[in-house]
Amino acid sequence: MGSLDTNPAAYASSFAADVDAFRPLDPDDVRSYLHKAVDFVYDYYKSVESLPVLPGVEPGYLMRLLQSAPPSSSAPFDIAMKELREAVVPGMTHWASPNFFAFFPSTNSAAAIAGELIASAMNTVGFTWQAAPAATELEVLALDWLAQLLRLPTSFMNRTAGGRGTGGGVILGTTSEAMLVTLVAARDAALRRSGSNGVAGITRLTVYAADQTHSTFFKACRLAGFDPANIRSIPTGADTDYGLDPAKLLEVMQADADAGLVPTYVCATVGTTSSNAVDPIGAVADAAARFTAWVHVDAAYAGSACICPEFRHHLDGVERVDSISMSPHKWLLTCLDCTCLYVRDTHRLTGSLETNPEYLKNHASESGEVTDLKDMQVGVGRRFRGLKLWMVMRTYGAGKLQEHIRSDVAMARTFEDLVRGDDRFEVVVPRNFALVCFRIRPRGGDGAAAEKANRELMERLNKTGKAYLAHTVIGGRFVLRFAVGSSLQEEHHVRSAWELIKKTTTDIVGEDK
Amino acid sequence: MGSLDTNPAAYASSFAADVDAFRPLDPDDVRSYLHKAVDFVYDYYKSVESLPVLPGVEPGYLMRLLQSAPPSSSAPFDIAMKELREAVVPGMTHWASPNFFAFFPSTNSAAAIAGELIASAMNTVGFTWQAAPAATELEVLALDWLAQLLRLPTSFMNRTAGGRGTGGGVILGTTSEAMLVTLVAARDAALRRSGSNGVAGITRLTVYAADQTHSTFFKACRLAGFDPANIRSIPTGADTDYGLDPAKLLEVMQADADAGLVPTYVCATVGTTSSNAVDPIGAVADAAARFTAWVHVDAAYAGSACICPEFRHHLDGVERVDSISMSPHKWLLTCLDCTCLYVRDTHRLTGSLETNPEYLKNHASESGEVTDLKDMQVGVGRRFRGLKLWMVMRTYGAGKLQEHIRSDVAMARTFEDLVRGDDRFEVVVPRNFALVCFRIRPRGGDGAAAEKANRELMERLNKTGKAYLAHTVIGGRFVLRFAVGSSLQEEHHVRSAWELIKKTTTDIVGEDK
Repeated sequence: MGSLDTNPAAYASSFAADVDAFRPLDPDDVRSYLHKAVDFVYDYYKSVESLPVLPGVEPGYLMRLLQSAPPSSSAPFDIAMKELREAVVPGMTHWASPNFFAFFPSTNSAAAIAGELIASAMNTVGFTWQAAPAATELEVLALDWLAQLLRLPTSFMNRTAGGRGTGGGVILGTTSEAMLVTLVAARDAALRRSGSNGVAGITRLTVYAADQTHSTFFKACRLAGFDPANIRSIPTGADTDYGLDPAKLLEVMQADADAGLVPTYVCATVGTTSSNAVDPIGAVADAAARFTAWVHVDAAYAGSACICPEFRHHLDGVERVDSISMSPHKWLLTCLDCTCLYVRDTHRLTGSLETNPEYLKNHASESGEVTDLKDMQVGVGRRFRGLKLWMVMRTYGAGKLQEHIRSDVAMARTFEDLVRGDDRFEVVVPRNFALVCFRIRPRGGDGAAAEKANRELMERLNKTGKAYLAHTVIGGRFVLRFAVGSSLQEEHHVRSAWELIKKTTTDIVGEDK
Repeated sequence: MGSLDTNPAAYASSFAADVDAFRPLDPDDVRSYLHKAVDFVYDYYKSVESLPVLPGVEPGYLMRLLQSAPPSSSAPFDIAMKELREAVVPGMTHWASPNFFAFFPSTNSAAAIAGELIASAMNTVGFTWQAAPAATELEVLALDWLAQLLRLPTSFMNRTAGGRGTGGGVILGTTSEAMLVTLVAARDAALRRSGSNGVAGITRLTVYAADQTHSTFFKACRLAGFDPANIRSIPTGADTDYGLDPAKLLEVMQADADAGLVPTYVCATVGTTSSNAVDPIGAVADAAARFTAWVHVDAAYAGSACICPEFRHHLDGVERVDSISMSPHKWLLTCLDCTCLYVRDTHRLTGSLETNPEYLKNHASESGEVTDLKDMQVGVGRRFRGLKLWMVMRTYGAGKLQEHIRSDVAMARTFEDLVRGDDRFEVVVPRNFALVCFRIRPRGGDGAAAEKANRELMERLNKTGKAYLAHTVIGGRFVLRFAVGSSLQEEHHVRSAWELIKKTTTDIVGEDK
């Protein structure tokens, strides 16, 4: 038993359910519990700014507060809410805080949360079209809407003016899953075309990505059975702002092909996690085409920016790739989880992922007129994620969504200008979107001292609870990442964070000269 | 443009956000949108019983109702809600309907939905402990609570009386992901112990499951790169009620080992999707142990029943397996998605799944004192799923949860008795949990006519909109599945469905003699 005072007896008078049959979805209870949850959410958003962004708790803290054994009898919902407030909230890292500048923000909106709530109440499992026709069709529609906002070629759309296309999309949980399922499809295609007996030829298949590519790509390759020795991480440098150099890619692919290996898959990133580097999609696609390798574009974060014409050029050449994924749960105001995967030829995906057990057979699937989304993902069960994504676009429209992106980029630009205005600092790589990578400049070329100062700056900042920044290493240098865009953030939060950074830096290295 | 009358102009007066900066998470908007969503949910639960369970819509129906292009400007949230009510709801298969008897029910509860709402508003991404300490610790606590309800051995728990254990769990999206990550861990271990050069030895690895195992297992094997020729589907029959025969398993594994192959992984199921067959876990573990093969137990559906002492024997022998997964989103009142995976040695999992990019490094991870849950799953990002699962157990307690299971089983028993009381029908396999597999009996041994009659019965029933049943094929026979347990269901719904079944059967094959 933990130390919180949550004696059920104190609430017993308000809880009479024990005398009746247990009705877990009684509509009055649902409404009552949800109203309590809504009040919590309202209070949370009103107060989160004042909470320490990064909590000062020690590992195991929660086990000391909550009981270690499950309760045997029921308790009023208020007890769970009380323990949430008193034990859980103080140990949260507040991603919703306007003072959160770490990683990438998980943006959110009123429309998305409401859509998610309704989806979790309907609780459909849309593995086949028949199992939830509207859920499947709304997902497909939302994907096509988003494809239009991104000005993707119609070859990636489920429906075109001419009817059902050969391309299409699916909403998955994470980018990792998008990578995994396309890797598997590419793997199987490469095995077939290289005349492999079963998977025997897998040892000859090779995959490629820049060294800045998210670590989850290299993990997904291992999950799909690629040989660790055949997973190529192409070095990048300041000369390409840490983007993939297509000439180097071509060279490595050609060397592999010359050695009898089978170049199978290239992952290009638009907006790397470390520094927002952008790989040149078109040139990558041209290199890969020489070897019939699959090209996937990971635009998890920065893809959202491409709904604005001024950023769309980062997707130039996308008409020549095989698949692209981006995550509205990162920067398009849609709460977790929501990763949109588009493929140019859905049959290449379903060929590797289709299952057809007896208990899921139905006329609609057999007609070939419908999409069964289970055949484009790892699992069978799936939530109704299309609803929240559709509600976001339906309610805010392209205009507000573009405004949201531009506002974040403008705030990042403001921060960048502030950094550039203080000689103690340097911006380490060009700012592409709403991430500023900066550091305290080395004095007299002392890199080790600079690293120490920057680490100390980050730790001191994060300990204040007034800001949370993460770091990365770029070109061997320890760098602070300032990611703008948490959905409650306004310019004054960015300016306050900068004041805190300046003051803390003064404590560490002294005043600007 | 679709045909629904949702002209934004009609709502313009209630929408003034355009004049201000766009605040997607304005607390007042959030509260207002959520109150509308709660009203919808309340009305939905009140009325879902009267809606056709399976909608009579044609493929593409929704594209004809909603606009095909994304809106350029914003609209009041009421428009999305109106289109939801008028276009989406009529095309839903209502899993929440008390007249839903298909597949397995996706059970739900007031506490779970409220927990999900709060999680989606906090919108944390708990990839590492530091990124969301309370989310990680509450997930770990909820898993340990559930392990206690299931009386799993302490070797599967994160925390034991003696401190941190070597085992532990993680909440994933689906059983498929649980299978995939354990398959990959088992694959890598088998490659190491067979002295494989990289993945070259993968062609020698073999995996095993009964032919009744969910199709997603065989798909997960292919995703992990196992050779399709080495994926063994062991035939089952009426002699074992379609459970895996451990003697047959041993025979097949031994033959493979004798042929120089490497038995790597066995999947045993407690409660198959088709007919709720149960593989004997202990005997399967004993067979697998001779070859050091990994044993995984898939208890997705029936695992929940094992919180009741009278069903716990189905897990006997679990102390000798390597991993077990079960899905509270199926039968433990927790909305999608929530699959709990437990492993006896977490290092075997993290050894294959760990990543360590610079931008996620932090003191807590380096201390070894914390669990970074990203290293036990496919992706990096993850929702705060532990909250809803914890809220369900905290609020209802073991007692109510057991009552819920027992009530469903009692209703299934009632239905079974009704079927047995009518000579036109037969119950095809023993009922283990809350699924009754039955069919119209063949007359004069005419199997083809019986199949036709049963198919017709299912189609006529589903067309009424008053019930939705799915089918399976068991031992070559077309069989109807009657799955009890949708969370709004009461005994009178089961009895009404039976009356409808009887009447429809009379229309097809005549009165009971």
